[in-house]
Amino acid sequence: MHPRNVLYAQSGGVTSVINASAAGVIAAARRHGDQVGTVYGARNGIIGALREELLDTGGLSDDDVAALEHTPGGAFGSCRYKLPPLEKDRRPYERLIEVFRAHEIGYFLYNGGGDSSDTALKVSGIGAELGFPVRCIAVPKTVDNDLALTDHCPGFGSVAKYVATALMEATLDVRSMAESSTKVFVMEVMGRHAGWIAASGGLARRGKGIPPALILFPERTFDEAAFLTRVDEHVREYGFCTVVVSEGVRNPDGQFLADSGTTDAFGHKQLGGVAPLLANMITEKTGHKNHWAVLDYLQRSGRHLSSAVDLAHAYAVGKAAVEFAVAGRNAVMPIIERVSDEPYEWRVGVGDLGMIANVEKKVPDDYITEDGFGITEACRRYLAPLIQGEAFPPFVDGLPDYRVLDLPQAERALPPFEV
Amino acid sequence: MHPRNVLYAQSGGVTSVINASAAGVIAAARRHGDQVGTVYGARNGIIGALREELLDTGGLSDDDVAALEHTPGGAFGSCRYKLPPLEKDRRPYERLIEVFRAHEIGYFLYNGGGDSSDTALKVSGIGAELGFPVRCIAVPKTVDNDLALTDHCPGFGSVAKYVATALMEATLDVRSMAESSTKVFVMEVMGRHAGWIAASGGLARRGKGIPPALILFPERTFDEAAFLTRVDEHVREYGFCTVVVSEGVRNPDGQFLADSGTTDAFGHKQLGGVAPLLANMITEKTGHKNHWAVLDYLQRSGRHLSSAVDLAHAYAVGKAAVEFAVAGRNAVMPIIERVSDEPYEWRVGVGDLGMIANVEKKVPDDYITEDGFGITEACRRYLAPLIQGEAFPPFVDGLPDYRVLDLPQAERALPPFEV
Repeated sequence: MHPRNVLYAQSGGVTSVINASAAGVIAAARRHGDQVGTVYGARNGIIGALREELLDTGGLSDDDVAALEHTPGGAFGSCRYKLPPLEKDRRPYERLIEVFRAHEIGYFLYNGGGDSSDTALKVSGIGAELGFPVRCIAVPKTVDNDLALTDHCPGFGSVAKYVATALMEATLDVRSMAESSTKVFVMEVMGRHAGWIAASGGLARRGKGIPPALILFPERTFDEAAFLTRVDEHVREYGFCTVVVSEGVRNPDGQFLADSGTTDAFGHKQLGGVAPLLANMITEKTGHKNHWAVLDYLQRSGRHLSSAVDLAHAYAVGKAAVEFAVAGRNAVMPIIERVSDEPYEWRVGVGDLGMIANVEKKVPDDYITEDGFGITEACRRYLAPLIQGEAFPPFVDGLPDYRVLDLPQAERALPPFEV
Repeated sequence: MHPRNVLYAQSGGVTSVINASAAGVIAAARRHGDQVGTVYGARNGIIGALREELLDTGGLSDDDVAALEHTPGGAFGSCRYKLPPLEKDRRPYERLIEVFRAHEIGYFLYNGGGDSSDTALKVSGIGAELGFPVRCIAVPKTVDNDLALTDHCPGFGSVAKYVATALMEATLDVRSMAESSTKVFVMEVMGRHAGWIAASGGLARRGKGIPPALILFPERTFDEAAFLTRVDEHVREYGFCTVVVSEGVRNPDGQFLADSGTTDAFGHKQLGGVAPLLANMITEKTGHKNHWAVLDYLQRSGRHLSSAVDLAHAYAVGKAAVEFAVAGRNAVMPIIERVSDEPYEWRVGVGDLGMIANVEKKVPDDYITEDGFGITEACRRYLAPLIQGEAFPPFVDGLPDYRVLDLPQAERALPPFEV
């Protein structure tokens, strides 16, 4: 059998290390030249796969591939696009197989979260059904850290490091200002359904100098009275209070706090921002002056502060995806397994896509303190290894030397397809 | 004359390198032991000076002093507290002289912005008047970069580096998502009256990969129609648009945009956040999906990403303040003078406090492009040297090893004073 090509696609929100997975894929593919031909990156994820927009990585130098490891964002483009349920509309799935057939794709590597695992699983099934079997491997990636089976998701450790560092720095700031000015600092982080990112704020604590923040988890219903009491207690005890709030915190009605009742001048509901909402509430109810920040994309693309451990994991799952594929595996995902906490040891394992798709891993009860505002020692033990080590990108003229690839697109062989 | 002591105080918003100025003061004072005794840090700035809360740095090891250089926030605490006008209320000024007399303070070093220069000038005058002459030196510090005479302010270069890096990273993120999701990213930065920080977003641009952001300066009145047109143009040309907005942008009525007309569910005016306001406006008027971030304290305390040049300047002005003082100078401020742009050369000069106090340096017209949304080549030449070089703090267990000092307070000699 002559070598078959790889189609690699990125999906959903990007991370600061997702391109390290791409680098792992490309490097491993090149080492298996007997079985693997060209690695194509789908432009803008599955949308590009459907449109037959395949970016050819064959011309990338080893230096370009290495640069992927230090460049955030999605090097080939990503997308928010969920394929329709297979039983409702087979056409997109069939189109994928047509594209695979036209470009001799033998390996489909889908770098994303739960939805992507599900898609990879379905594509694997339909390929076999249509007589064009493709080995489909999901490559885990999500800053939310909500995938099942794997100990954690590549991408998350770097966000955790970013959030904990930002919180340490903001804490040192507010402690300087608190005597005469700002007493409460509120920092909003990502995590709509799982509070892993918010939890990582718990790592910032450092003795008397950097006291614990109050953490608001989406796993806990927001209790305004209890929260404001704790804010006041922190101000009394430490002179100030820091808060890390997950964007996904909900009020007792189950509504996102961020959506609850702020309107603009025209009477339109104002979108988002649980941090300003909480900050206003705090000042109104306690009188303490506030400052607030919303990290948004910065936390997940802050490659200048990525965790070396996270980077290694991201690379490893990309590499393993190719190795699994050439070894004949199908409908699986390389996962990270934890061998021990201290010293931290890990290895790549294999997860079955059927066990991963659409299961959301939340922060377990025993990781959240009884009062609901902090992390336990068990949580700290889990999180601590994931932020270890620095992996600074090269800097040129004072700024990171991020490289944006300009790749040739493979010639189209099929008629256009409307996405 | 036996050695006189130093009182060093930090004022106003802190920076990621303000403690490097403190380190420069302490190290220089130790080298001039014949003329300089103890360096006291006022607890929480001028408030601590009035309350006679003087923190003794005498016991700090050289290693502690070095740690100041990599720890953000204000090591002794800062404050937002403006002394009343001298002609209205002499009492606080007299109290300062009483404290100086009680602790043999011969040198008052005030590390702040325009207001602090003004205070240092007045204290110098009243000391002489009351027969207790004190050499008063202002040490420049402001992230806003709005001080007169000095080429730029220590603290600013690090914010500029932080903002430009964050914008590069967010740009790579939004460009990955734009095909199917977010097309506009809005990042709010500090700078209520001067747009230097916003301008630094102009440094992020990198060819086709990272196109220019639209920058909104407080020096330009917000023109909604022109702005939305440009947003649309960027989306058409690049597939997405990034915006850096200064918190101080005003509408044609002269009102801060952030204050204009957002009310919460209770009908209260909602405080702040020009980024969410703009982001909502963009989506409502153009239909493009948005994401937005507010950097707040993170930009000014992000010591993990400080500029090495900025750090050197911060240290240099602290050191020079002591050298000026022991050389007999009074009512002056060490300033940074630019000798050449390329290669960048600088030296410490001397500024007269009478020329500095309460003058606000804004971004000049020839630094802003004609359309009002970008920086000119002259601005880039000015900004570029200030972000050069990395000065990463040491990391321990994955996080910066920031050190919080626990200093003994000098015994009080005076009755309490109400601040």
